[in-house]
Amino acid sequence: MKTTELKNMETLIALAKNRGFIFPGSEIYGGLANTWDYGPLGVELKNNVKREWWKYFVQEDRNSVGMDGGILMNPNVWVASGHVGGFSDPLMDCKSCKTRHRADHLLNDDSLPIEEMEKAILKKKINCPHCGKYDWTAIRQFNLMFKTERGVVDASLNTIYLRPETAQSQFVQFQNLQRSSRLKVPFGVGQVGKAFRNEVTPGNFTFRTIEFEQMEYQYFTQANDSMKDYEMFKSRAMDFYKTRLGLLPDRLRFTDHTNLSHYAKAAVDAEFKFPFGWGEIGGTHHRGTFDLGNHQEFSKKNMEYLDPTSNEKFVPTVIESSHGADRITLAVLANAYYEEQIAEDDTRVVLRFKPSVAPYKVAVLPLQKKGLTEKSDEVFSMLSKHFMTTYDDTASIGKRYRRQDEIGTPFCVTIDYETLEDNCVTIRDRDSMQQRRVKLDNLVAEIAKGLA
Amino acid sequence: MKTTELKNMETLIALAKNRGFIFPGSEIYGGLANTWDYGPLGVELKNNVKREWWKYFVQEDRNSVGMDGGILMNPNVWVASGHVGGFSDPLMDCKSCKTRHRADHLLNDDSLPIEEMEKAILKKKINCPHCGKYDWTAIRQFNLMFKTERGVVDASLNTIYLRPETAQSQFVQFQNLQRSSRLKVPFGVGQVGKAFRNEVTPGNFTFRTIEFEQMEYQYFTQANDSMKDYEMFKSRAMDFYKTRLGLLPDRLRFTDHTNLSHYAKAAVDAEFKFPFGWGEIGGTHHRGTFDLGNHQEFSKKNMEYLDPTSNEKFVPTVIESSHGADRITLAVLANAYYEEQIAEDDTRVVLRFKPSVAPYKVAVLPLQKKGLTEKSDEVFSMLSKHFMTTYDDTASIGKRYRRQDEIGTPFCVTIDYETLEDNCVTIRDRDSMQQRRVKLDNLVAEIAKGLA
Repeated sequence: MKTTELKNMETLIALAKNRGFIFPGSEIYGGLANTWDYGPLGVELKNNVKREWWKYFVQEDRNSVGMDGGILMNPNVWVASGHVGGFSDPLMDCKSCKTRHRADHLLNDDSLPIEEMEKAILKKKINCPHCGKYDWTAIRQFNLMFKTERGVVDASLNTIYLRPETAQSQFVQFQNLQRSSRLKVPFGVGQVGKAFRNEVTPGNFTFRTIEFEQMEYQYFTQANDSMKDYEMFKSRAMDFYKTRLGLLPDRLRFTDHTNLSHYAKAAVDAEFKFPFGWGEIGGTHHRGTFDLGNHQEFSKKNMEYLDPTSNEKFVPTVIESSHGADRITLAVLANAYYEEQIAEDDTRVVLRFKPSVAPYKVAVLPLQKKGLTEKSDEVFSMLSKHFMTTYDDTASIGKRYRRQDEIGTPFCVTIDYETLEDNCVTIRDRDSMQQRRVKLDNLVAEIAKGLA
Repeated sequence: MKTTELKNMETLIALAKNRGFIFPGSEIYGGLANTWDYGPLGVELKNNVKREWWKYFVQEDRNSVGMDGGILMNPNVWVASGHVGGFSDPLMDCKSCKTRHRADHLLNDDSLPIEEMEKAILKKKINCPHCGKYDWTAIRQFNLMFKTERGVVDASLNTIYLRPETAQSQFVQFQNLQRSSRLKVPFGVGQVGKAFRNEVTPGNFTFRTIEFEQMEYQYFTQANDSMKDYEMFKSRAMDFYKTRLGLLPDRLRFTDHTNLSHYAKAAVDAEFKFPFGWGEIGGTHHRGTFDLGNHQEFSKKNMEYLDPTSNEKFVPTVIESSHGADRITLAVLANAYYEEQIAEDDTRVVLRFKPSVAPYKVAVLPLQKKGLTEKSDEVFSMLSKHFMTTYDDTASIGKRYRRQDEIGTPFCVTIDYETLEDNCVTIRDRDSMQQRRVKLDNLVAEIAKGLA
């Protein structure tokens, strides 16, 4: 059988829109640059990715717990974290055509200080990529945090921020988390939630957006063990992508950071091979004591941990395992896409999702329109108590199988007139396209077995 | 056995903080008025509430799908919805002490137009409740939407809003949702997500906050059927609260809206009896064709549905089933709280959660410290593949049972030296406190049965 992988993003974007994975945000109003809405299939896929992550990082580890912190935090959090001072892009405007550009992108080099960037752009006489003129403003630092005003009771307004990352919740709540969970260092705290960045140049579908969801795990450990733990979490990230999400090993790689952030002792990106090239989907970061140390300094609250065995007090070192929920969902979608030539004149599109992440686990398909509604309702109702189940009673059965293939449903259950007599249905497997007859009494167990 | 219900919020707030359900947001920086973070137990409880909602409203209904729309939308969405023009509170400041107040709250009457409110406050000479002076500014309308600026490529900035409700996603995406899902009217679309309101007077713990999560279901139907559907969704809401979350019937009631919103044909609140009084946790709203009609008018995009049977075109009527995830989580927590006098000199606090929403389903408790670690790890690892499982090997077994009671864990599994010989463990039931011995081979199935 001739099999073709996904070749370009356009194919994926069209399928995503037509079948209900991802729609352009606010489309009827001409959109809002680089916002996207997850449709009926997309929300299930993304929820499954988040659920698998939670299971792997939080549920199955007895030294882990989760949390869910607010998007809006006291603005001093972002002073202490360094985001108010330093989380910005160097931007310059073309005075001629009024377009705005990132100086580091124009230079294709993000390692220079601002002054050097201006000199380099002058020296190389880099023209505006939009209008071709050379008529730049000076570079200004543009903070990537969205600001808003909180109206407060004393009639003044306070500037607060939409969090640009979820991580700070775990740091700010470190003492509450440790005390209430009674976990001993080393332990970790996972969190899934939205973050926002006022990106000037978003793009590549849901890869870079102004609103996105992160899955971040902060591991609080001892300085002495931290490099070993860093390596452990590098491995765990790859293990998660491969064994839980089914991302193919040859589409995954690590890339060490060459420019380490000011706070990082070591940092690595995990990248997936998208049709547009390698793109970061996660990272493992050795953050040292930067975060807890800074919060201790700025808040004047103690961030030390008292080791009950050694009786020593110390500020724990943090290893972060950070994952982009939207990017990973996009990777899972791209990874699953195949065109298969199943006969000389017959090609099908199939999303070969790992069953655990497939939006629908099973489709209920009555073979004929008449006389099977009651039995089909009964089967839907039985299955949907356990699994996300869809129902389709239109068009030929062949066409309906192809629809389910194209959205990656692992199993189709067909109901026919014989079902009314023998209480058996046919299960059809997405990948092998094999069919087998099973008793209705065993159907839930059979599907569950196939999903495990 | 003498049993006492929850009497006041202070008890619940203290338990929530100490045991890791809910922490004050940004506490180390003195907080940010009325923001809260869900801790290790709170995030599980709330996730369970959201999962049960999704299962009931989306998964088990074959005419329903889900979606997940962005928090940031094109600002014209909020013009069409009426929020830019009309979503505001009438506020006045005390010039003497600089505190800000809602005029309708001062009057205890939200039915008057602004001019009448000013007159009424003057007439009744209502003084500032904070400083006691009578020195008011005029009433100003204060829009409840948080604004932020989106930096765009053409160097100008665009004002966008944090959505004040999730509902508009389903309306704006109506055509994409219908076309991609191929569902026929009537059908419904569920969504769970964050919304934001710049409330001047938030309060009552997580009951009224500036950032909150909604679970909203929009049912697209025909005008002729809409009052029948409205009644159906009223019933479904109550059925959901009682059968899926275990909220006690005598703590639930409906309250019809006396002042209908401009768009509503009929509307009812579902209320729960909190220790501070009856509070809204959800609502069923007959929204007519207001939303789709307005989006059609403002976007100039067709919002009609073509009925394939009658060949008629019409703008569907919307019935909304709206639920506050944070408020319902708070209701579930308050509802579960009991103090039980289990002996003359012995009282326990127990959270009698319905097992489906309990944060941890099972606790693994090795009876002795020594020699049982390996077996206990094995049991934890076996259970945590299926259930949120916790582990505790400190303090006496009685104390550990009480800890689990206080966080509502339905089952405790104790491992003792005998386990090493007979491969059996003891299951202890939270509510009956009965214990029974089961084979390790049957443990997962036994727990699963107990949770069903």
